[in-house]
Amino acid sequence: MEAIEAARMVEALSGDARAAASALAGASTRVKDAALRAAAARLRRDEARVLAANQSDVERARAAGESAAFVDRLTLTPRRIDQMARGLEEIAGLPDPIGETIAAWRRPNGLEIAQVRVPIGVVLSIYESRPNVTADSAGLCLKTANAVLLKGGSEAQATSAAIGDAIRAELVQAGLPRAAVQLVEGGRDVTRGLLRRDDRIDVVIARGGETLKHMILEESRIPVVKHFEGICHLYVDAAADLAMAERICLNAKVQRPSVCNAIENLLVQEDAAPRFLPQIVGALRGAGCEVRGCPASRRLVPDLVAASDADWDTEYLDLILSICIVPSLDAALGFIAQHGTSLAEAIVTEDYAAARRFLAEVDAAAVFVNASTRFTDGYEFGFGAEVGISTNRLHARGPMGLRELTTYKYQVQGAGQIRE
Amino acid sequence: MEAIEAARMVEALSGDARAAASALAGASTRVKDAALRAAAARLRRDEARVLAANQSDVERARAAGESAAFVDRLTLTPRRIDQMARGLEEIAGLPDPIGETIAAWRRPNGLEIAQVRVPIGVVLSIYESRPNVTADSAGLCLKTANAVLLKGGSEAQATSAAIGDAIRAELVQAGLPRAAVQLVEGGRDVTRGLLRRDDRIDVVIARGGETLKHMILEESRIPVVKHFEGICHLYVDAAADLAMAERICLNAKVQRPSVCNAIENLLVQEDAAPRFLPQIVGALRGAGCEVRGCPASRRLVPDLVAASDADWDTEYLDLILSICIVPSLDAALGFIAQHGTSLAEAIVTEDYAAARRFLAEVDAAAVFVNASTRFTDGYEFGFGAEVGISTNRLHARGPMGLRELTTYKYQVQGAGQIRE
Repeated sequence: MEAIEAARMVEALSGDARAAASALAGASTRVKDAALRAAAARLRRDEARVLAANQSDVERARAAGESAAFVDRLTLTPRRIDQMARGLEEIAGLPDPIGETIAAWRRPNGLEIAQVRVPIGVVLSIYESRPNVTADSAGLCLKTANAVLLKGGSEAQATSAAIGDAIRAELVQAGLPRAAVQLVEGGRDVTRGLLRRDDRIDVVIARGGETLKHMILEESRIPVVKHFEGICHLYVDAAADLAMAERICLNAKVQRPSVCNAIENLLVQEDAAPRFLPQIVGALRGAGCEVRGCPASRRLVPDLVAASDADWDTEYLDLILSICIVPSLDAALGFIAQHGTSLAEAIVTEDYAAARRFLAEVDAAAVFVNASTRFTDGYEFGFGAEVGISTNRLHARGPMGLRELTTYKYQVQGAGQIRE
Repeated sequence: MEAIEAARMVEALSGDARAAASALAGASTRVKDAALRAAAARLRRDEARVLAANQSDVERARAAGESAAFVDRLTLTPRRIDQMARGLEEIAGLPDPIGETIAAWRRPNGLEIAQVRVPIGVVLSIYESRPNVTADSAGLCLKTANAVLLKGGSEAQATSAAIGDAIRAELVQAGLPRAAVQLVEGGRDVTRGLLRRDDRIDVVIARGGETLKHMILEESRIPVVKHFEGICHLYVDAAADLAMAERICLNAKVQRPSVCNAIENLLVQEDAAPRFLPQIVGALRGAGCEVRGCPASRRLVPDLVAASDADWDTEYLDLILSICIVPSLDAALGFIAQHGTSLAEAIVTEDYAAARRFLAEVDAAAVFVNASTRFTDGYEFGFGAEVGISTNRLHARGPMGLRELTTYKYQVQGAGQIRE
């Protein structure tokens, strides 16, 4: 019986989304932006209702013994609700990418070819714990005229439903299909069923933990844009400005350790290590960070915790940093190729050749010279908003804003041309 | 034992490809282009050897009772070998997309962000029957510094091996890794094994029949860029220039019926039908094409074969065309939405509003006004070469040239910026 019910839900959700996508494709920028602004206003008006729903999720999480960091990510405040609302208003204020001409040219035979941005179609967004993703994803998909199926974590179910209700009510007011934004309820059977519907769903955007990741990659017949783990490095070169290196290291590790673009491993060139290590270890510890180290670094700072082999491949998402001393830029590049996850990598150096090599040779979505990896972010890149940070190589890499939620078609105008 | 052997081959092929991709990434445009030109020269020198290998494939195909069209696609001639060689030379002459700056901007905090084209990494190309795909794919991947695993159909195995040998010999001469281009031998077990190696292979490019398609979609953990069926339509509007419509219809159906961008269904607006149908049916039949029709079209041309429901969803890849009379542009748009495969669709009209609506509302990789769908092609679009025509919506849609074999990374240069 449950399987039949799940199949029925999959059929209805995906069918309604497909129909909504067709209706949305023709919506004007004006109508979409008005709906986004109205949804923002409604979120603010519904503050008490959203907070009450969130309170029930938070209590459930606490009762289940979830960590403080988990509960913090889940918890809404009036300020966080206002941020969500402002996020929707900012999306409304951004240029509409749909209809944009990416390129246009004329062929020798007179054919005029234009490559024009269009919506992807139906997006299935699967994510965990942060309720703001519900509002951000709905807003970004609405602006790009994609119908979206939102499958948040069960831990935030009441919160997501309250946010979704507020947004959906305004869609209908604006004359847009209610099914442009749908929340997926039901368990893994429903999610699994949706992941098979490549006839109706065009892309899966996946943000979440390892278990979720493996399930999605195993089950999906739909292309998946992953937002998975980030093991990011900061390499302090022999020619680094060590005061700058300290500032960047602290920012990249401590400012928000629970995110994918925070660093997990610090590499220090061996000639810089005797001066830099005592200084950075003290600063990190002062910020509450546990520091682990390789044997060479423990000779310089004897009370460091010994780093195990597993440390170099662990995304802590916490106030822990592992330090490895390396003999050269080449060794740093090799270490990053071996242990990095191709998300964000940074070097601090005043050496022109070292900076150039690092930019050219490191294979990652974002490569930084003399700046914090924490800038790997749609807002910080100037995209205005982001649906996440893709760890894919195809379609979209790194921060995903509005453009990354579009595809294109070629419009070709002729005067009767035929192919020879 | 066979399973162990297959596993060993998968491990070696994917490992060698990954290592080759790293080595290729730093290759200069000059070295890549010299290798392409040398490979072209070698193909011409090896003509006799390649033709002999092809002869054995062709004899095997004939003995197996394959169709004349199949044998034709498989058969090489000195002219076709020269075309392959010229294809490689043309690729050498194209601008190198690797390293191209797609966009660059400065943030208010002074960060300088550049979005730069880089290779995808390792490409697995799976295809059937046309031996030229071996040379084209190898050439396009080499130019874009991607390592490629070529899995051609078993029917062309000897031919592909001979072409591959010629190209690989010149890679080594040029100082490039031999494993930049590898031919995958072995059966389905090896292909299946490769499709699981998302740790080493970045994209699968799939061109082939239904069986192959389903196997790949079921088995692959790697993102797949599909090049699958095209059910393309030509809609002859009430306001069409009927002489132009006839010319375009004949070209789109007859010039090369075995390809995905040929049309299968002809839609005719009912007011134009009494004049157009007798004329076009005569012309199609004169070109050797069987014509089927809906009941309304059979009232106008009584000796038409009756089209069944299945006809509208069949990619004939042959000299067969089905005609349906529709009352309006709206009906044509609905028909295309229902039966089209979003590859290429065309309208013939002198009506401005009809042309605009068709361009805007048809959801296909390429939408044509007053031109043949047969122009859906990398060469015809001016890309210089193509690896195929993507029926995906993500990453690449429609003709895939060099740029579609690249991804990008963000290079960010700062002066010590940290995130607030």
